[in-house]
Amino acid sequence: MALIVQKFGGSSVANAERVFNVASIITDTYKKGNNVVVVVSAQGDTTDDLIEKAKEINPNASKREMDMLLTAGEQISISLLAMAIEKLGCPVISLLGWQAGFKTNSAYGSARISEVTPDRLQKELDGKKIVIVAGFQGLNKYDDMTTLGRGGSDTSAVAIAAALHADRCQIFTDVTGVYTADPRKVENAQKLKDITYDEMLEFATLGAQVLNNRSVEMAKKYNVELEVLSSLVREDGTIVREVANMEKMLIRGVTKDTDIARISVVGMKDIPGNAFKMFSRLAQKGINIDVILQSVGRDGTKDISFTCASSNADDAVAILKDIFDMEGAVVSSDTTVAKVSIVGAGMQSHSGTASKMFGALYEAGININMISTSEITISVLIDKEYADKAVSAVHKAFFG
Amino acid sequence: MALIVQKFGGSSVANAERVFNVASIITDTYKKGNNVVVVVSAQGDTTDDLIEKAKEINPNASKREMDMLLTAGEQISISLLAMAIEKLGCPVISLLGWQAGFKTNSAYGSARISEVTPDRLQKELDGKKIVIVAGFQGLNKYDDMTTLGRGGSDTSAVAIAAALHADRCQIFTDVTGVYTADPRKVENAQKLKDITYDEMLEFATLGAQVLNNRSVEMAKKYNVELEVLSSLVREDGTIVREVANMEKMLIRGVTKDTDIARISVVGMKDIPGNAFKMFSRLAQKGINIDVILQSVGRDGTKDISFTCASSNADDAVAILKDIFDMEGAVVSSDTTVAKVSIVGAGMQSHSGTASKMFGALYEAGININMISTSEITISVLIDKEYADKAVSAVHKAFFG
Repeated sequence: MALIVQKFGGSSVANAERVFNVASIITDTYKKGNNVVVVVSAQGDTTDDLIEKAKEINPNASKREMDMLLTAGEQISISLLAMAIEKLGCPVISLLGWQAGFKTNSAYGSARISEVTPDRLQKELDGKKIVIVAGFQGLNKYDDMTTLGRGGSDTSAVAIAAALHADRCQIFTDVTGVYTADPRKVENAQKLKDITYDEMLEFATLGAQVLNNRSVEMAKKYNVELEVLSSLVREDGTIVREVANMEKMLIRGVTKDTDIARISVVGMKDIPGNAFKMFSRLAQKGINIDVILQSVGRDGTKDISFTCASSNADDAVAILKDIFDMEGAVVSSDTTVAKVSIVGAGMQSHSGTASKMFGALYEAGININMISTSEITISVLIDKEYADKAVSAVHKAFFG
Repeated sequence: MALIVQKFGGSSVANAERVFNVASIITDTYKKGNNVVVVVSAQGDTTDDLIEKAKEINPNASKREMDMLLTAGEQISISLLAMAIEKLGCPVISLLGWQAGFKTNSAYGSARISEVTPDRLQKELDGKKIVIVAGFQGLNKYDDMTTLGRGGSDTSAVAIAAALHADRCQIFTDVTGVYTADPRKVENAQKLKDITYDEMLEFATLGAQVLNNRSVEMAKKYNVELEVLSSLVREDGTIVREVANMEKMLIRGVTKDTDIARISVVGMKDIPGNAFKMFSRLAQKGINIDVILQSVGRDGTKDISFTCASSNADDAVAILKDIFDMEGAVVSSDTTVAKVSIVGAGMQSHSGTASKMFGALYEAGININMISTSEITISVLIDKEYADKAVSAVHKAFFG
């Protein structure tokens, strides 16, 4: 008998049919003798519909009242899911975030969980009930409803799994697991049996949005074993844990990110502090910088290029022009680029990973613009039009 | 400066426009220097829509989960109303039933308020905020959400007014007050300035559904001054209080109830216990009996007639046939009847009220079937087709 936490997103409970699909996954797990806690988001478009209602009345409504409004969404989904499980004949109870012991800080709209006190939850589990918990929500020190912000339900699930020392936290999604590359685009893409927290974090950062980063970080911190799996296809998913079975795999997968821009400053005066000035101003505006390349330019100047999200490109250019126009440096942006990366803790103990990747790109006739490496990733910047081709070529080199 | 509790029903906040209408009533009251607590129901059809969703999934859902579902309805309306008041520039906060201190018993779906602990509410009032409270809901000793059942929001408002010793509890409706007769049907129907709790209770019982009986009973018990008024027409309503200004008025009004049936048992054996058997069996089935008439029949038998809600007629007949068929008594029902009543505490100290009523009916050529009286009411049973004519005739006799 194990204690399993299961998390289902809003689309998996969008209508009565899907609610029953989810209910049957839950009751099957329960009937195998497990204790089951379920975290569920608001149904389908409920949250968006509520936001629309609020906007109609007051586009500048306080965040406190927005959270009061939005937390009603999960209240509806947990009770409906509980009713479906009642219909399937299993004992069940639904609990709001605060009933399940979720305490948060007071940052309405993007609150952080400060504590989970699962006394009530444990009591219901001891009574052999399936417990359905409203994700995405908690209560602050004023006894007011708060929401955890986007991706909050994943975090709710991991926090409960940590508080209850659950054996596993299953995150149900619309994909059957984490793949070595996007299976819709890359032939022979393979589902991973397991992956480490760090690799999963890199995957998320590099553009493969399967799990919310905050929840993976929390799972790592509290050593919660995650499983990414599908709510529609009943098969084993991918396990995310501290140490994954890595001996056979040099890398875990190949990802691409096409929503990026390369910003270049050419002909900057080569004096101390220029790079600092540049990146601190960008940071102040909340622009995250990724790959950075600095090179020596002509006549004692230097050039700096970096990448950021393409949505930040115009802001970044404006900031840099403000700094460097006076110096005569030329600022430009290029959104026709893509980043292709390989991820794998295995590359730490194997030499030749980078050359294998670069060789595959060379053979495919793809030019590399910039290169960036971390302990468990190697990323290259290439022309956007070759992104899919590059992923396939690199994937083939590593996975055959 | 007074403390005013205002209650608005679901139809008065059904859409954004109506929400703002209600918000302006509230802020006008606040700007006059009053402390204002508002109790509001779920918007328009929200509750019915949620019930429909539940039925689709499980028509036999537990009442506990139904209450979890339905309490989301007021959570939506209180936050939207608070947002509208924010937009109008007044300080405001919304509170769920439990945040406002509503403790109830555990009769999910029809819970009774056991206690209101208004600490949080008082604190927000002290902070000069308008407080919007979710009606119809509370929390039981298990910390689970409960609903108070139909008409519950009126009761919520009166309970808050009692707990805070409010100066007045205004119940906003779609009528501008309590009238001497239905103003849509009776010429010269007058709005009452005030009326006693007992008179109001009789009005409600006799078919004029303005206020929920339970809330009037609670207002009487805690001596809360009620006002019935319109959310659409800005004018003084009718005050409901212990002692009303009654010297000038013999009676308060004339009402009719056409949803009744007369059930007759003719030729019952005249032996002790028959009436007891009859009415106890009906009570067991939850059938409320109103006017009862017993007369001596032929050959040492007796006849009993009584009235009940027309929706109970078939059940009542079936029960009575089961008892009396063996005895040869004849059971029949008649739904072509109506009850016309006059209500007024003034009749206690004035003789001739009944004869004035009967005289008016005689002059209008309307035959009286049965008569029933209480301390402050006189009711007659007549043919349903003459109901409106009877009300007009009686109203004219008393109010000119």
